[in-house]
Amino acid sequence: MVVLEDVEPCRQAVRESQQQGGIVGLVPTMGALHEAHLLLIRTARKRCSYVAVTIFVNPTQFGPNEDFDKYPRTLETDLSACEAAGVDLVFTPSVETMYPAGSQTNIHVSGVTEGLCGAWRPGHFDGVATVVAKLFNILPADLAFFGEKDYQQMVVIRRMARDLNIPTVIVPCPTVREADGLAMSSRNAYLSAEERKQAASLSRALFAARKSIQTGEYDAAKITGAIRKEILAAGPVDIEYVDIVNADTLEVVKSVDRPVRICLAVRIGPCRLIDNVAAGAGK
Amino acid sequence: MVVLEDVEPCRQAVRESQQQGGIVGLVPTMGALHEAHLLLIRTARKRCSYVAVTIFVNPTQFGPNEDFDKYPRTLETDLSACEAAGVDLVFTPSVETMYPAGSQTNIHVSGVTEGLCGAWRPGHFDGVATVVAKLFNILPADLAFFGEKDYQQMVVIRRMARDLNIPTVIVPCPTVREADGLAMSSRNAYLSAEERKQAASLSRALFAARKSIQTGEYDAAKITGAIRKEILAAGPVDIEYVDIVNADTLEVVKSVDRPVRICLAVRIGPCRLIDNVAAGAGK
Repeated sequence: MVVLEDVEPCRQAVRESQQQGGIVGLVPTMGALHEAHLLLIRTARKRCSYVAVTIFVNPTQFGPNEDFDKYPRTLETDLSACEAAGVDLVFTPSVETMYPAGSQTNIHVSGVTEGLCGAWRPGHFDGVATVVAKLFNILPADLAFFGEKDYQQMVVIRRMARDLNIPTVIVPCPTVREADGLAMSSRNAYLSAEERKQAASLSRALFAARKSIQTGEYDAAKITGAIRKEILAAGPVDIEYVDIVNADTLEVVKSVDRPVRICLAVRIGPCRLIDNVAAGAGK
Repeated sequence: MVVLEDVEPCRQAVRESQQQGGIVGLVPTMGALHEAHLLLIRTARKRCSYVAVTIFVNPTQFGPNEDFDKYPRTLETDLSACEAAGVDLVFTPSVETMYPAGSQTNIHVSGVTEGLCGAWRPGHFDGVATVVAKLFNILPADLAFFGEKDYQQMVVIRRMARDLNIPTVIVPCPTVREADGLAMSSRNAYLSAEERKQAASLSRALFAARKSIQTGEYDAAKITGAIRKEILAAGPVDIEYVDIVNADTLEVVKSVDRPVRICLAVRIGPCRLIDNVAAGAGK
């Protein structure tokens, strides 16, 4: 495994692999790797002959009052985990390498960024789209793997890649959960024992909602109402949103008459947690 | 020479050429090819083993009251000119191929887009940056050739390519002029005989300004004042701007104490004409 901080050797490594007929897979991360990242890496390892992981806590996707400074940074452990998982290349650029003085370019995706987290985190998805476009140029992979826990992020990146004719194919991978259902996230580390217990209500409510749809409840307002009720019953929280959206366009639906995604964001203590499940159309 | 309307065969042709060790050159155009385009193509032909030209009148870089509909379209003549100039591939996509239904992604470059034409054509450089980023992904060339007549455009594209880690190198090529100095442009075709004569005042004024700098005049206000006077002396026109800017950042300078670009935009009759020259630092 090679660890690189500069752009040019990354591009060369990918091109050499492709020239030898290899399939290159990319797993962009912000580090603090956990089991869900390892699923992305293992999926890439199965489907590709060369696997590149990027570890970069991207400042431009954090708002001014968000947790950029305290976001967990565990580089040594991350590199060991990558090595153990059979990763070929890890790109660990500095902020200066990614954003040299004079950088002035921003990518904005409209539509799919407007609801859900986009409405609560202005500029967040611009930061995500721009950094991922850069990573796709630095490591021009054949496939790139993204977790469905950040469902809107995956849709935004897929939209951006299609719109800009980026040849990299976006591969969504399922959310990985703790034993009690909590979606894995590097930010779960911020939770106290009490909050951690309370946080299990998010996935419990989402799974119950999916079940209610399977048994014939199609009224989005009733379903999201039940989700809110279940989460609030678990303790004091600040619910940012609970929405049922079209799985492709992320437009809010009133009735579950097509494949949907049930998405939510909730603040518990110091922590902003998001989660989602697929539902509708036989799911 | 192959003429292609679809994305995938373009990418394949470029990759095949590169895999055989070739250097691929790209010349993006809106068609209506004239001698200045041919200079770009001939320069590409000299420096590259494979030359691709794109012909696409990009709707997103035209404002609502601009000349998208009447912009000259001369595809058959353009293809003959490309063939004669030894072009290998011409990409002539439809609007639907470039912007399929559901497209939502926009690239914005700040800073260098704010003055000059950017101040007069809101959204124009977003359209340019976005379509060129797409073309760079469709035809991932080693070198791309742009005329200095559209100096701000070249700077915006170079900025965008650097910021997004696009590997294509931007090669600026000198402005080609008519015998009386008028910068070649597809839009010159809109001018009446009288207006055509008047239009020569633009380059005459720019060359005189450069000469005055060579002989010791460094005061930007005095220099631009003299340019305006010379242009207005040639007949009734609407001067949008005459600015002396830092050649890299495009920031307006008050004194010519570094390499600068003297840039102007003038409306003559139905026609918006732009021109610029390098000056300062021994030029």
